[in-house]
Amino acid sequence: MADQPSSTPLRIGIILFPGFQALDAFGPLDCLNDLSRTHNLTLSILSSTLSPVSTKVPLLPNTISQSILPTHTFATAPDLDVLLIPGGLGIRDSGPAIQDAISYIRAVYPKLQYLITVCNGSALAAIAGVLDGRRATTNKKIFDEVAALGPKVDWVPQARWVVDGNIWTSSGVSAGIDVILAWIEEVFGEKVADDLTNGLEYTRHRDANIDPFAKVHGL
Amino acid sequence: MADQPSSTPLRIGIILFPGFQALDAFGPLDCLNDLSRTHNLTLSILSSTLSPVSTKVPLLPNTISQSILPTHTFATAPDLDVLLIPGGLGIRDSGPAIQDAISYIRAVYPKLQYLITVCNGSALAAIAGVLDGRRATTNKKIFDEVAALGPKVDWVPQARWVVDGNIWTSSGVSAGIDVILAWIEEVFGEKVADDLTNGLEYTRHRDANIDPFAKVHGL
Repeated sequence: MADQPSSTPLRIGIILFPGFQALDAFGPLDCLNDLSRTHNLTLSILSSTLSPVSTKVPLLPNTISQSILPTHTFATAPDLDVLLIPGGLGIRDSGPAIQDAISYIRAVYPKLQYLITVCNGSALAAIAGVLDGRRATTNKKIFDEVAALGPKVDWVPQARWVVDGNIWTSSGVSAGIDVILAWIEEVFGEKVADDLTNGLEYTRHRDANIDPFAKVHGL
Repeated sequence: MADQPSSTPLRIGIILFPGFQALDAFGPLDCLNDLSRTHNLTLSILSSTLSPVSTKVPLLPNTISQSILPTHTFATAPDLDVLLIPGGLGIRDSGPAIQDAISYIRAVYPKLQYLITVCNGSALAAIAGVLDGRRATTNKKIFDEVAALGPKVDWVPQARWVVDGNIWTSSGVSAGIDVILAWIEEVFGEKVADDLTNGLEYTRHRDANIDPFAKVHGL
């Protein structure tokens, strides 16, 4: 297996906060980890402090969880080309970790090539104002809760993912794998995306408009 | 959202090692994280030391990665009911982290209710000897490499997952989500598994015998 060729890296960042949904983050990250075997990527894992970030939702203290190490705070984040925002019930918290994330998204968005959200990660982008006037989607089980946070956003209730300009928003949790593979196909080509998909033995949703979970959740 | 009821917890453990595949671990873990909102679970994250465990494959130093905090070493691991073993290219390493994992699997298996492997995590179980005489499956892209490590195992080339006694082995990476949901259905019932699946907006492989990736990878 060849390690990646040298070239100007694509600089990717991901925002983590207490109570992020593990698969929202690690679905896309696993695809990018594998992509980095053949393409030059950097990854910055951003949070409000450098302390480990737990998936434990503050309001659900008796759940099991995992803790991930950030590489940078929002204050020390390097320049990025792509920013990923996972969701999770931790977004319901109003603490400084969430507020810092929202401020960072608002400040950094104009300098990004792409913004990609998973699940209710789109709520943070909506509160930051960067989705105003855009088409976007989110988790289908809590669609109304998220939509209420972005009254100027054109929320799409039936979509596996939505692309509007340089913003890619996906539906809930596992839809993050589909949106990142669709984005990789757009940026790196179909063969690269298909090779990754086959390596992950993942059965992709390939049509952004087909969304079985909108109906499941009554939308 | 109700937090879990009090009851005797089901004690789950997962083995991590340098170069584990992120989605092998976090697909099943995310399902279990969500399950723990309604059912009493504990989780022990086991590794050879308490240092953060990176997904970076030692032989591929230029790739991007994430680091996870273990909760216990193999030497301090509490009693478990269920052990999860993810895969990853780090299994190709012969260092102490992998050797310690194999020794631990060999020692702990007789005390487990269930052993669940994802991808080439089955290679560790095979080397530990606990798959001898059993039907099992693994990643399809490197099927022959893994099968050679367990000459006394009845390797199944075409299966999304295989159940033999209390051992559940799955195919590559994302098949870990299918095997854990099938296991949750077996242990906690169909409604619990379906509710989790819908919450994750995941399109399950529901038939263990249908495996499109065996053909993709020439098996």
